[in-house]
Amino acid sequence: MEENKLDFLYLTDSEAHRNVNVKYITGHPEDATLFVDIKNRQTILIPWDYQLAQMSSEADRIVNMADYQGVITATIDVFAEGVSKNPKVGITRGIPYDNVQLITDKVPDTEIIFNPSIIDNLLAELRSTKSEHEILSMQKSVEISNQLVTEMEEIIQLQNKVKTEMDLAIFVESRMRELGAFAVGFESLVASSARSWQIHTYPRADPKQSLYQKGLALIDFGVQAEALTSDVTLPFIMGSMNDKMKKITETVKLAHDVSIDALSEAEFLHEVAEVAIKIIEDQGYRMPHSLGHGIGLTVHDAPLLRKKPTHEAMLKHWTPTRVEEGMIITIEPGIYEKDVGGFRLENDVLITRNGPRVLTNSKPIPIDLN
Amino acid sequence: MEENKLDFLYLTDSEAHRNVNVKYITGHPEDATLFVDIKNRQTILIPWDYQLAQMSSEADRIVNMADYQGVITATIDVFAEGVSKNPKVGITRGIPYDNVQLITDKVPDTEIIFNPSIIDNLLAELRSTKSEHEILSMQKSVEISNQLVTEMEEIIQLQNKVKTEMDLAIFVESRMRELGAFAVGFESLVASSARSWQIHTYPRADPKQSLYQKGLALIDFGVQAEALTSDVTLPFIMGSMNDKMKKITETVKLAHDVSIDALSEAEFLHEVAEVAIKIIEDQGYRMPHSLGHGIGLTVHDAPLLRKKPTHEAMLKHWTPTRVEEGMIITIEPGIYEKDVGGFRLENDVLITRNGPRVLTNSKPIPIDLN
Repeated sequence: MEENKLDFLYLTDSEAHRNVNVKYITGHPEDATLFVDIKNRQTILIPWDYQLAQMSSEADRIVNMADYQGVITATIDVFAEGVSKNPKVGITRGIPYDNVQLITDKVPDTEIIFNPSIIDNLLAELRSTKSEHEILSMQKSVEISNQLVTEMEEIIQLQNKVKTEMDLAIFVESRMRELGAFAVGFESLVASSARSWQIHTYPRADPKQSLYQKGLALIDFGVQAEALTSDVTLPFIMGSMNDKMKKITETVKLAHDVSIDALSEAEFLHEVAEVAIKIIEDQGYRMPHSLGHGIGLTVHDAPLLRKKPTHEAMLKHWTPTRVEEGMIITIEPGIYEKDVGGFRLENDVLITRNGPRVLTNSKPIPIDLN
Repeated sequence: MEENKLDFLYLTDSEAHRNVNVKYITGHPEDATLFVDIKNRQTILIPWDYQLAQMSSEADRIVNMADYQGVITATIDVFAEGVSKNPKVGITRGIPYDNVQLITDKVPDTEIIFNPSIIDNLLAELRSTKSEHEILSMQKSVEISNQLVTEMEEIIQLQNKVKTEMDLAIFVESRMRELGAFAVGFESLVASSARSWQIHTYPRADPKQSLYQKGLALIDFGVQAEALTSDVTLPFIMGSMNDKMKKITETVKLAHDVSIDALSEAEFLHEVAEVAIKIIEDQGYRMPHSLGHGIGLTVHDAPLLRKKPTHEAMLKHWTPTRVEEGMIITIEPGIYEKDVGGFRLENDVLITRNGPRVLTNSKPIPIDLN
């Protein structure tokens, strides 16, 4: 990669800056610096937890930070030891400004190469299309997700076992782990109709809000069975809908279905996003988030399903992303109106040789209120 | 602050870079850019969720990103509109390199001021010492934590209700929300003796590991009752200990108790850390993490309890932190030996006018194995 141009690639993952590429390349779960010494074809990992890295991570060299006082100081010193004159160092999106400054302070003739349309996009492409092994691993997350959708439909119909938003969050997060998940993909968002107009509810689930308030409610949850996480939003229609609610739910459902069909025909992902956005905007709404995103080692992974940007700063590093076999993406159109409620329908879709295959089974669940 | 030097302060919080100062200053929970226009004494918030900000966040101006295509493009344009010639912009630790580059691309005569020993330390000082309101809020998290410690001791003694690491994680995360917590402070770490030598277990809790394996086990959990999170590690001694285990547990317990006493006498926090580290190193061990840290809006907040650094890059921005009234910190010495196990004892401590007050009730729990 960039063999003629870069000497080092510098990636880092820490509590303040998550970068899934470190995990993707080395298997190390979190909190480490990774140098790829491109000329010498060598990876150098500087983990916060040395014993964990020795056990579970792959790199040509694993540095014990205890020999250098800490991860950041080890990063600086290992870099200074390893580079020759005028090193060209590639960095990725999101890397802390101060991390870059620390290595240029130490080695002042370092040239920093920030070129996300090459470096980040190449890594994103690698992560976007899943291997057979990754697809099998995702299949396990999907199976538990589908089981949870079935169980939630039953338990919500009863209207007595789970009562509040928080009850549903606790149910789904406990139950997924009973069903064999290693972890919660992310903290579940549960919104009764009182709060569903919020895109990401805050707090994530409220113990004071009853689920059974008339209107549009939803849960957005993820299952991490092994390494890869699913991401599903299940909407509930509590009681009868007024005309405004009907228009929102029908528009979102149409955008969802048309988007999945469009994945068969479209050459590029932004074309799919543009089809969905047109459906929503034609009805007078605006979707405040992307149509969907890749899922994998992290819940918001590459690629992003957004329309082509028009702002110069965004266009500068933008390249169109093809719809490719092996991608696993969410399709999750949503509309949020403060006086009506919010409605999002989200399923996970695998792109196969024969077109899109919807892996999850979310659909709007009507509930007759007692 | 820095009135003679800075025109703007630029803070941002996103999925890839968490910066609790945005929440601290505006109350906005996450995903926003904040400019502090210092000359005009004005705060400008650019949130991802505009409706949420209108409802819950405080700023002189709240920008609707929809008018600018997105948070990043709004950041660029609002900055360009708002600054005069040769603006001096202060940034904080961890800000993504590319965010800084985007604004300097747009306004090339921008001067970036990265001076964490002034900017970050001032913000950290503000967050470190809690108001009366914050202390009351933390008190609620502490009460639930203490109730959980009592309940866990009972339930673990039974050896039949929770069986695996995952069972205990599910119990504590469900139970804290039943007891009124708005959220889990962080994903619980549960380690049986098979894995307790790992500092941060990965996966966080393993459904395949029985808790009742002879040796040293622990759970590290946090409760967020309202806004502030507690952080407690409760160690279990499963069955009888061999001499190596005894030495580790006694050394950690001594370091824990001496550290709390030292908080009464010490002028600076690094002195407390140095006392604990000496106790541990005198016994031939090394502690791979800090002695403790502030807790508040985020689980790893300012201040950090570390010894004075010796590496030039760290010394450059280091200033000693005084032990001050209103601080709420963890004290959590730990030792991790692959062939013996890991042992960490963690309690939360409020610094009052009359000295340290230990808020939580964690202590080693001996379990007679069936």
